[in-house]
Amino acid sequence: MAAHPVSPLAPKSYPELPEIAGVRFATAEAGIRYKGRTDVFLAAFDEGTTVAGVLTRSKCPSAAVDWCRSVLPGGRARGLVVNSGNANAFTGVKGRDSVTRTAAYAAEALGCAPEEILLASTGVIGEPLDPQKFDGVLSAMAGVLKAGPYMDAARAIMTTDTFPKIATATVELDGVTVSINGIAKGSGMIAPDMATMLSFVFTDMPVAAPVLQGLLARSADGSFNAITVDSDTSTSDTLIAFATGKAAVPVLDSVDDPRAAVFGAALADVLFDLAMQTVRDGEGATKFVAVTVEGAVSDESARRIALSIANSPLVKTAIAGEDANWGRVVMAVGKSGEPADRDRLSIRFGDLLLASDGERAPGYDEAATSAYMKGQELSITAGIGLGEGRATVYTCDLTHGYIDINGSYRS
Amino acid sequence: MAAHPVSPLAPKSYPELPEIAGVRFATAEAGIRYKGRTDVFLAAFDEGTTVAGVLTRSKCPSAAVDWCRSVLPGGRARGLVVNSGNANAFTGVKGRDSVTRTAAYAAEALGCAPEEILLASTGVIGEPLDPQKFDGVLSAMAGVLKAGPYMDAARAIMTTDTFPKIATATVELDGVTVSINGIAKGSGMIAPDMATMLSFVFTDMPVAAPVLQGLLARSADGSFNAITVDSDTSTSDTLIAFATGKAAVPVLDSVDDPRAAVFGAALADVLFDLAMQTVRDGEGATKFVAVTVEGAVSDESARRIALSIANSPLVKTAIAGEDANWGRVVMAVGKSGEPADRDRLSIRFGDLLLASDGERAPGYDEAATSAYMKGQELSITAGIGLGEGRATVYTCDLTHGYIDINGSYRS
Repeated sequence: MAAHPVSPLAPKSYPELPEIAGVRFATAEAGIRYKGRTDVFLAAFDEGTTVAGVLTRSKCPSAAVDWCRSVLPGGRARGLVVNSGNANAFTGVKGRDSVTRTAAYAAEALGCAPEEILLASTGVIGEPLDPQKFDGVLSAMAGVLKAGPYMDAARAIMTTDTFPKIATATVELDGVTVSINGIAKGSGMIAPDMATMLSFVFTDMPVAAPVLQGLLARSADGSFNAITVDSDTSTSDTLIAFATGKAAVPVLDSVDDPRAAVFGAALADVLFDLAMQTVRDGEGATKFVAVTVEGAVSDESARRIALSIANSPLVKTAIAGEDANWGRVVMAVGKSGEPADRDRLSIRFGDLLLASDGERAPGYDEAATSAYMKGQELSITAGIGLGEGRATVYTCDLTHGYIDINGSYRS
Repeated sequence: MAAHPVSPLAPKSYPELPEIAGVRFATAEAGIRYKGRTDVFLAAFDEGTTVAGVLTRSKCPSAAVDWCRSVLPGGRARGLVVNSGNANAFTGVKGRDSVTRTAAYAAEALGCAPEEILLASTGVIGEPLDPQKFDGVLSAMAGVLKAGPYMDAARAIMTTDTFPKIATATVELDGVTVSINGIAKGSGMIAPDMATMLSFVFTDMPVAAPVLQGLLARSADGSFNAITVDSDTSTSDTLIAFATGKAAVPVLDSVDDPRAAVFGAALADVLFDLAMQTVRDGEGATKFVAVTVEGAVSDESARRIALSIANSPLVKTAIAGEDANWGRVVMAVGKSGEPADRDRLSIRFGDLLLASDGERAPGYDEAATSAYMKGQELSITAGIGLGEGRATVYTCDLTHGYIDINGSYRS
């Protein structure tokens, strides 16, 4: 694995993450693929911790995703094991055996049932993951669990991410401070795998599992499901939230509880922050781009058009070249297959109106638009003019760096 | 426009194209955008010529596409005007006026009705196309029409294509030789437009317009609709067939006529040849790749999975890097959203079985697979194992050349 330079879009500073009562963790070097860096993360949760998750929609999910899908309905978690270096995907019966045994090792180390262990793996595809690698390691880690720092956890789950990703939010409920911490990895790459997204969120809020599931799914739609680097969906995408319930407030057990909106908004903030960091670490990224579609026939239609724009190689290369090539945005709207009327279409880059009513805007200013394209943070807005549907997705440009990272022989 | 080197996948030689009775044409320099090269093509057809066409599905079609859509139902053609340098797309009322006036100029020059003129434009988007440019030019061209050579026609419609594209086929019907000639342009690029595909086919076969339409649409599905360079659909894609009826055979006026299959197969051969040349001129292409999906639940499902593989940036960059990265093919199958069962999936590169039954194949040979990837012509086959559905799509790799061509500022 070649080391790649840190993304120019990386955060300039990181927040301090508080400890979360009921969450302790450790990282270790299990030598799964990398040498000289941590590649295993073990988290332990106090009894009573609830859990919810959003998993990849891939029809070829990893063994760890299959495992999570089977245990998540229980709604209870006592442990989480994440490894980098091997995705344990497309590994057949061996993969299933590997997750079963890994969960058993972790359960033994933490003194719980295997069904209370969540698993995630990222790295090479098609390579069997030897569960023996976790055997002694997990029990040793269980002896040195700590409540921080979260930056260590974020580093242990990186693959070719160029920077660790953490976020935090707090809310006051009935005079009690509730905290939410999150970590993520994504858009990093080791061959022969793909840009896998993993994210884990920890809170001391007492939340019933079904409520947590609902809030998490909704927040995922506006964050991790609203980003794209290259349109390729991982076999391993995993977002899991753990709620220890240690905060001294009543259990949030209904979405109709007014606190659900407050807590949900903070959860959404954490996920959005992590998702934006993931785009900013997109392979080869030099520009961060928000693509907004408004006036579509529905929000879902707007989202499909926005993804058509954000995934277009011609749009993404134009952005890389700092070319105000709005004709390619027209093309991407047109190819989306969604209802659109060329003669009502408008396009803005930032605040600059480039096209309206199906043709170049009368006041189009090439020099001003070109100057705008030199910025590092760009916004593209397409107005469809047919309805009230609206969506924003976030992406990055397509550069030589992407080809360098993904077009070189894995070794 | 920077000149790009001729694609390494270009044909080593070209066939000699026969004259088609009833077809005469001329090329000229109208100075639409380029200097010192032909940029207008005018074809004239004898009375009685039938016409059929397949047009872009973009919701933002060019003015010329709108024009063709309105006149094609008439089924008769006397002329064709094609220009490069300006796509006349997203040009609003001016665009509609421009095609109306261009058709009027051509009709006057050829002595026919404007509704018997077909139009196609390729080049810059959003820039009004001044129809005055065609005024004197078309009448002058009408005075110097010739029956060949077709290579001149193929060159006049190029934008940044690195080589001209021609193909031909003949069939014997009742002892009479019937000819089909075709020209195409595609995957070339001038900013701010996109990789537009235009293709025109000429035959002396007498064919009723509805039969020609049916045969053309079917042939397009297996050729131009089975290729992808970068998943971006043009606003201007246009495929039109002209049948002069000069060959001394009875009119083909029913698809049940046994000659429909013979003629249709030859037509399909010409379109397939042109489509493969278009992929071989894909921007930055260094490898030609046939992606076959078999065992899907339907042919349409197979086609969607094949496109998911062929459009995946991670698959395409791996091919560019000569990396036998079959894990990315698993990913692309999984993300397609089509029915698939990980544990029945198999993957072959050429004749090499890389994965079967949801895991790496027992006899997987990394060295042999790596050697295979060094070839210029590759095939990827994904076996889904669920049914009889089958499809093949054709694509090229994603290289630094693509970024160079599309990621530089237009000027």
